[in-house]
Amino acid sequence: MVNPPKQTIGVCYYPEHWPESRWDEDARLMVAAGITHVRIGEFAWSKLEPNPGEYRFDWLDASFEVLHRHGLKVVLGTPTATPPKWLVDQMPDMLAVDENGHVRGFGSRRHYCFSHEDYRKECARITTQFAKRYGNHPALIAWQTDNEYGCHDTVISFSEAALKGFRNWLAQKYQSPDAMNRAWGNVFWSMEYRSFDEVELPNLTVTEANPSHLMDFRRYSSDQVKSFNKLQTDIIRKYSSAPIGHNFMGSYTDFDHYAVSEDLDIATWDSYPIGFLDRDSSDDENKARYLGVGDPDLQAFHHDLYRACGQQRNGAADGRWWVMEQQPGPVNWAPYNPAPYPGAVELWAWEAFSAGAELVSYFRWRQPSFAQEQMHEALLLPNGEFNEGYHVCEKVSKLLESMEAKAQVERADVALVFDYESQWAWEIQPQGRDFSYIELIMRYYRALRRYGINADVIPATKEAIANRKLLVMPGMFNVSHELAEALASSKATILAGPRSGSKDENFQIVQDLPPGALRELMDIKITRVESRPPTSPVPLEDDFAFEGWREFVTAGEEVSASMRSEDGHDGVFENDRMIYLAGRPNAPLADHIIKTALEKAGIVAERLHRDIRLRDNNGIRYIFNYGPETVDCSEIIGGSELEFGEVKLVPRSVTAFRL
Amino acid sequence: MVNPPKQTIGVCYYPEHWPESRWDEDARLMVAAGITHVRIGEFAWSKLEPNPGEYRFDWLDASFEVLHRHGLKVVLGTPTATPPKWLVDQMPDMLAVDENGHVRGFGSRRHYCFSHEDYRKECARITTQFAKRYGNHPALIAWQTDNEYGCHDTVISFSEAALKGFRNWLAQKYQSPDAMNRAWGNVFWSMEYRSFDEVELPNLTVTEANPSHLMDFRRYSSDQVKSFNKLQTDIIRKYSSAPIGHNFMGSYTDFDHYAVSEDLDIATWDSYPIGFLDRDSSDDENKARYLGVGDPDLQAFHHDLYRACGQQRNGAADGRWWVMEQQPGPVNWAPYNPAPYPGAVELWAWEAFSAGAELVSYFRWRQPSFAQEQMHEALLLPNGEFNEGYHVCEKVSKLLESMEAKAQVERADVALVFDYESQWAWEIQPQGRDFSYIELIMRYYRALRRYGINADVIPATKEAIANRKLLVMPGMFNVSHELAEALASSKATILAGPRSGSKDENFQIVQDLPPGALRELMDIKITRVESRPPTSPVPLEDDFAFEGWREFVTAGEEVSASMRSEDGHDGVFENDRMIYLAGRPNAPLADHIIKTALEKAGIVAERLHRDIRLRDNNGIRYIFNYGPETVDCSEIIGGSELEFGEVKLVPRSVTAFRL
Amino acid sequence: MVNPPKQTIGVCYYPEHWPESRWDEDARLMVAAGITHVRIGEFAWSKLEPNPGEYRFDWLDASFEVLHRHGLKVVLGTPTATPPKWLVDQMPDMLAVDENGHVRGFGSRRHYCFSHEDYRKECARITTQFAKRYGNHPALIAWQTDNEYGCHDTVISFSEAALKGFRNWLAQKYQSPDAMNRAWGNVFWSMEYRSFDEVELPNLTVTEANPSHLMDFRRYSSDQVKSFNKLQTDIIRKYSSAPIGHNFMGSYTDFDHYAVSEDLDIATWDSYPIGFLDRDSSDDENKARYLGVGDPDLQAFHHDLYRACGQQRNGAADGRWWVMEQQPGPVNWAPYNPAPYPGAVELWAWEAFSAGAELVSYFRWRQPSFAQEQMHEALLLPNGEFNEGYHVCEKVSKLLESMEAKAQVERADVALVFDYESQWAWEIQPQGRDFSYIELIMRYYRALRRYGINADVIPATKEAIANRKLLVMPGMFNVSHELAEALASSKATILAGPRSGSKDENFQIVQDLPPGALRELMDIKITRVESRPPTSPVPLEDDFAFEGWREFVTAGEEVSASMRSEDGHDGVFENDRMIYLAGRPNAPLADHIIKTALEKAGIVAERLHRDIRLRDNNGIRYIFNYGPETVDCSEIIGGSELEFGEVKLVPRSVTAFRL
Ligand SMILES: [Zn+2]
Ligand SMILES: [Zn+2]
Ligand SMILES: [Zn+2]
Repeated sequence: MVNPPKQTIGVCYYPEHWPESRWDEDARLMVAAGITHVRIGEFAWSKLEPNPGEYRFDWLDASFEVLHRHGLKVVLGTPTATPPKWLVDQMPDMLAVDENGHVRGFGSRRHYCFSHEDYRKECARITTQFAKRYGNHPALIAWQTDNEYGCHDTVISFSEAALKGFRNWLAQKYQSPDAMNRAWGNVFWSMEYRSFDEVELPNLTVTEANPSHLMDFRRYSSDQVKSFNKLQTDIIRKYSSAPIGHNFMGSYTDFDHYAVSEDLDIATWDSYPIGFLDRDSSDDENKARYLGVGDPDLQAFHHDLYRACGQQRNGAADGRWWVMEQQPGPVNWAPYNPAPYPGAVELWAWEAFSAGAELVSYFRWRQPSFAQEQMHEALLLPNGEFNEGYHVCEKVSKLLESMEAKAQVERADVALVFDYESQWAWEIQPQGRDFSYIELIMRYYRALRRYGINADVIPATKEAIANRKLLVMPGMFNVSHELAEALASSKATILAGPRSGSKDENFQIVQDLPPGALRELMDIKITRVESRPPTSPVPLEDDFAFEGWREFVTAGEEVSASMRSEDGHDGVFENDRMIYLAGRPNAPLADHIIKTALEKAGIVAERLHRDIRLRDNNGIRYIFNYGPETVDCSEIIGGSELEFGEVKLVPRSVTAFRL
Repeated sequence: MVNPPKQTIGVCYYPEHWPESRWDEDARLMVAAGITHVRIGEFAWSKLEPNPGEYRFDWLDASFEVLHRHGLKVVLGTPTATPPKWLVDQMPDMLAVDENGHVRGFGSRRHYCFSHEDYRKECARITTQFAKRYGNHPALIAWQTDNEYGCHDTVISFSEAALKGFRNWLAQKYQSPDAMNRAWGNVFWSMEYRSFDEVELPNLTVTEANPSHLMDFRRYSSDQVKSFNKLQTDIIRKYSSAPIGHNFMGSYTDFDHYAVSEDLDIATWDSYPIGFLDRDSSDDENKARYLGVGDPDLQAFHHDLYRACGQQRNGAADGRWWVMEQQPGPVNWAPYNPAPYPGAVELWAWEAFSAGAELVSYFRWRQPSFAQEQMHEALLLPNGEFNEGYHVCEKVSKLLESMEAKAQVERADVALVFDYESQWAWEIQPQGRDFSYIELIMRYYRALRRYGINADVIPATKEAIANRKLLVMPGMFNVSHELAEALASSKATILAGPRSGSKDENFQIVQDLPPGALRELMDIKITRVESRPPTSPVPLEDDFAFEGWREFVTAGEEVSASMRSEDGHDGVFENDRMIYLAGRPNAPLADHIIKTALEKAGIVAERLHRDIRLRDNNGIRYIFNYGPETVDCSEIIGGSELEFGEVKLVPRSVTAFRL
Repeated sequence: MVNPPKQTIGVCYYPEHWPESRWDEDARLMVAAGITHVRIGEFAWSKLEPNPGEYRFDWLDASFEVLHRHGLKVVLGTPTATPPKWLVDQMPDMLAVDENGHVRGFGSRRHYCFSHEDYRKECARITTQFAKRYGNHPALIAWQTDNEYGCHDTVISFSEAALKGFRNWLAQKYQSPDAMNRAWGNVFWSMEYRSFDEVELPNLTVTEANPSHLMDFRRYSSDQVKSFNKLQTDIIRKYSSAPIGHNFMGSYTDFDHYAVSEDLDIATWDSYPIGFLDRDSSDDENKARYLGVGDPDLQAFHHDLYRACGQQRNGAADGRWWVMEQQPGPVNWAPYNPAPYPGAVELWAWEAFSAGAELVSYFRWRQPSFAQEQMHEALLLPNGEFNEGYHVCEKVSKLLESMEAKAQVERADVALVFDYESQWAWEIQPQGRDFSYIELIMRYYRALRRYGINADVIPATKEAIANRKLLVMPGMFNVSHELAEALASSKATILAGPRSGSKDENFQIVQDLPPGALRELMDIKITRVESRPPTSPVPLEDDFAFEGWREFVTAGEEVSASMRSEDGHDGVFENDRMIYLAGRPNAPLADHIIKTALEKAGIVAERLHRDIRLRDNNGIRYIFNYGPETVDCSEIIGGSELEFGEVKLVPRSVTAFRL
């Protein structure tokens, strides 16, 4: 990047929740904490259009003015995630329908079906109003479309609108029912369709639907998010030159975030480290150890993933990404909602900045005393006094200033392919109850982090895989011939398996068996797969094992096989270009195979202390201690002078030094 | 009480299930066992009105006559819990609707929606028939309205009738949509309503509904039970001077039992100690230890709670309460249905009588061989022979006679506030998955019982809190200014927290932070709460800990703080009037804090053996051994002469002596 | 049997899935592997009638010809399990409805309601087409009706068609509503009906429906399967003399398989040992030990059960039975899908042949690369190469040939009664959460197998119980007077209990208490039953215990009682004819009681090694090692010459010798 942007602090703000008399004081306090960016507007539809066509922008105008007066920059959200009740009553069939056929009603948020054409018209109308009125406001720094697409499982809807849309989508994709029948293999179980209008949505079937049918419906649903978003970005760009973002979520994969990002200038995401630890982690020991700080790798993974999303619009390395919402205290929505440990809120900020975030924006300015999120903490308490997060802003903003911190991450030698279709594929066909693509990805990602490697997380595009030393791509459901050729012609070491390249684009098993096109890189054939319960792993050498998933492989002569199981099957296959792992590795095996792959790629790496993580940004190396004990980091730091922090890193703290 | 009533035995009887030729023998055997009260009639609608408007009271007349001839007193139930099929077919929309929108059909019982106006008219009609015909029958001793309001989750219905009723209720409560919008905070997520007719029921929303919306729907639903019941009591009082009761259930809180009791003369409840142990308890060690006798505190808690309900109509201390249904053997509806241990059935009778019950009535006289309850044991076997419970009646009724037992419980120095709205509040907003108000209440109640304290369980009314030495009120969701003043002006020691006083009546966080109005008693502020998984309690001193819930508190100078956690936060706050506990106590901490509070209130108490419980009624002290081992109770008994039982209390047995 | 049939190998084949050019090669390879029988046609409706009335039998004709040319015999399936979409669109109400009232849509298979009259007409039409066209084809060896009745829980449907059918069925059964009211005990809870048209289906009731109502609906639903099947068999018999079978499933009991089998010539079933181990077993140690070979008793039980089904049409001992589908590798539908251990696939074949199977037919010939079963392995890999199962066919078919193996099982001295109504009864009324009839049956069956006993599994008919030395009949819900008389007049020792004979045919408790009519054999009375959680078994002598279920019994003087529990209740009752066990035995007690009963019946038996099982067929004794260790079987074999295998049986292997 020629002029890397300064790194700074933001906040999410709902002026409509507070008396106008308080707004000036709020702005003053924001500036005092070093906050520069303020997101407003999303969720405010009923306040802006209390009756159909009756606009009330006066309060939003005033809010812009107050923030502008204080020198704050505004990120303006379109309010389409919360259509008012009068709008829903005008078109009740705009509501989404769940898998059981139940209409998902008004009374919270995201109560719309992405496929509903008339609702899209309403979104275009309100977005046009926003874009015209604020598109050139001097305080406007960026746009946000809608809010958290997909939150509360809202991408997939089984509505009449979705049925109609899906049939049209199929017709456009396949042109003839016979082509679709062949692609899906509908000769099986007499599922052949004579016209696209015979196709139903794949819910409430007697037993599971055809995986090809399910996959196309997942693709269709994802496409609706993209086109829904593009409708807004096209309008905004007509009236405004400010960049556009959308706030993605963590651990959410129901639409292709790369594809949606093609229409965005900035990828942003909402980071809730503690909430996700408790909600998603299945490892009780981890849960207890990192209760108040979150998983040491899950935030980092998302930073890397959304950094890649930020690069989709221009296809260039100078993509922009933000943390749009950062948890500053306990939240309200996880099964349990513990408080952050001392130091944790600051640590999260540095984890984001060190991964190249331009902005870390807190959710939210002040805790409301009412409604669904009244137990979600904020920078201010409900009574307007400072909460802990406010003081973290003060501290971090001063350090950013003094360090002249800028967002600049270099292209990594190591890249891990994360592919949304693969996630859908293995949700549709786990074959063993606990098989999860993203969990498999995390096994490799964690191992990379434990070796201190800053990897890029990338889509499987030719451009993204170029110029790497090591490409890791487990579980990649469909490896096209083009991709395989690109891999073959790259200089990178490839680490693949299990399940990589096992299906074609129609969700059929690849011709002449898996790994399909990857056979261009290595002469192996997967002749059998098995899934096994957690109580029966497959023991290999030492403490290595496959957990839950194993493949039986026949290999050509130039392939060397190793890591034999107790029952006599090799687990690792290697040639000069590639390593194939024939199962889901336990943590020791993931470490071992990553170490092996790094060495093969000529990358030197050392295993870190279990709680320590590293990151480089703009010439600064950051060290994080996620654990409960003080860790001496003098070996990592050498004699370098510290930007901040201590060599003996206390629990949940950070230090940084210039490389 | 000037003339405390004699304590006696009853039974629930279904003459319509047996040949008329057997009725005389049944009555004779009842009398022989010492039974004096017989409940009949509820559930018999189809037998009494086989076709619309075609009444057949002859058999019920005859049944009254037989019982009367034997000197038995009749408790007559209205049959409104089981409308016949022809009635349902006349108005199919009278059926309740579950949370998923599924109609809850005919084929068992309680198949009606409390909000349905036309069904209420039918209830008024049949109740009028009953009241006119039997209101002055010489055998009639009391009425029962309907049966177990709310059983099988029937208070909350998502029907059209409920929607219409709820909108009207909101209109009456708030008068203007804007007032409702403000009270609910509907500015959040664009949930503002322009008219009451825009409001929906809070089910099937995309994510959780507004807690204020949910709370008002819970209040509305509870109010429907009260008005449904009052419709019947108003009619009955026109034609009969007999007192009216309703049989409440255990561990059931979906309506405000105090409010319904304002229209009742006698609070009665249905006691199933073993069934509830297996269904509700989450403690496996307790479950195994008390398998055949039930939880040592859960029955007692309900006795105390419904004794308070019995005091609501006249607001006086001479309220009446009964056990309307007492389990005499295994039941059919719990996940597992073990047999009572030897002695257990008798122990339960004394637990009720010692808590001031006038009547312990067994469910039921004879086990039917048919239909849903064929596996529910009774005093007689299906073949008419004696079952174990019959002999318990014989024994207990003789002892009652010889002791001249009367129902007379003194107002207790210690009272524990149990508040139905608080239960709904924390169901709506647990904030941590396992947070339960009633479970929190039980933690304190159990500790009181372990110290041998006979506490009253009370509503949070001025009258109920008056003249106490110690008031325990954890988790009380909304402490009004008036209540806080009453507490402040009382002489009682107050034990509060966690969550006490944290919300206002609209389900908003109290102004200037919790504990809201309780700050009038103690200068503390709750600045943060956290919920934690069971695997991560907060260790305090010794073996004390907070489990699942902790609050962070700032306190004024006159407040002394103690019980510091390992991570440096105080857990107990105390001044001259009040103790505030900033978390959910484990059992040792509950004991400790109760001990501290008792001492502060000037009450001397000793920790009992884990299986031993005490109760006083009418000058007699009862000692219960719930455990599997014989316990020597000579220290408790001193030299007193025993009314019955032994000093060395064998497992599951009772002894009693005059104080 | 006069001419016992040769034992042979078959395969399930879908020519429509593969290019016609491959068919000849497929047939050639089948023959080369020793395959003689090929099942085709089921599921092919859309291929045979792509538009209404437009038949396309050409490809099926051609397929017959290819197979015939190679000397292969065809088993032809009617395609009624997969009606095409156009047919469903013609009569959308033919779809089944689930318990929640949701329509079970098109998109997989078995999307029909058995009660739908118009769909039955369509089935008759297509079956007539099949029967006329292929009924006399020289290659045709047998018919299969439909496919796996009931798979995916499809027997029970809550559709309008089912409601209408059920009301008619009730009217025919009871003739008057009053008779039904009496039989069901509808006086309870005012459930009395004035006409059959008032009766609803027993789903979505507020709490559980009347067990008699549920039982009649289960009987009705089972009857629909029988009449649906008979519609096809009647048509087929008009045009063809080939025998007719249907492929039943394992662990499936929603219809009475004996009753359906009355219209079949051959009972066949689909055997998936690994899939069922993982799906059904609750014993983690067993699951790990037998992960890749399956439960050592579950397949055998089904072989015995379906052998009995094969005897229903003629009521004679020469019934025929096949394994229609045998798992040859990992499947796709269990929670986890491990690979068979080496030797397991062969072991399963011998387990079936040793139990008298005529045919073991593999599912399927070649793994498809598409649609729902793409991960279900086959004899050939998706690319057409041999998979492991192919080589097993080669080996086993050669051994069958060399041994001149024939299906001939002698009537066993020991019979275990398995009764479908009892299964429904205890599903309706488990009384303790984990009470399962089939699990209870398996406790006794396993014990018999552990003693090397080849038992018959039989219905409770006079004919089936005749000429036995020992009859085992635990949990038999309704023992009629006629059955009791037959038992009394037989010479067999009877082993009964718990719950045997406890209900009458109307699902009412038997008059004068259980065991009802069994009292004609033994003077005992069950006065109480209890169910207990798994954590609280009832300890008896030694390591014997009752698990989950116990009965309290009073016995006449001529009955000897023993096996007293710690709390003083006898557990075993015995007289000269009968043993009654008053609880659910743990494994040691099941072994003990079987041993006792065998001795009483004069049958000598020895406890086998835990992994070893025995079977006799046609004068050959087979020994199976299901375990992970080599077992020396020289004691069993004595000096006999082995047909195949080794005396030291390696893990998962078989040996056989002529008796
Ligand atoms: Zn007696
Ligand atoms: Zn539904
Ligand atoms: Zn071979």
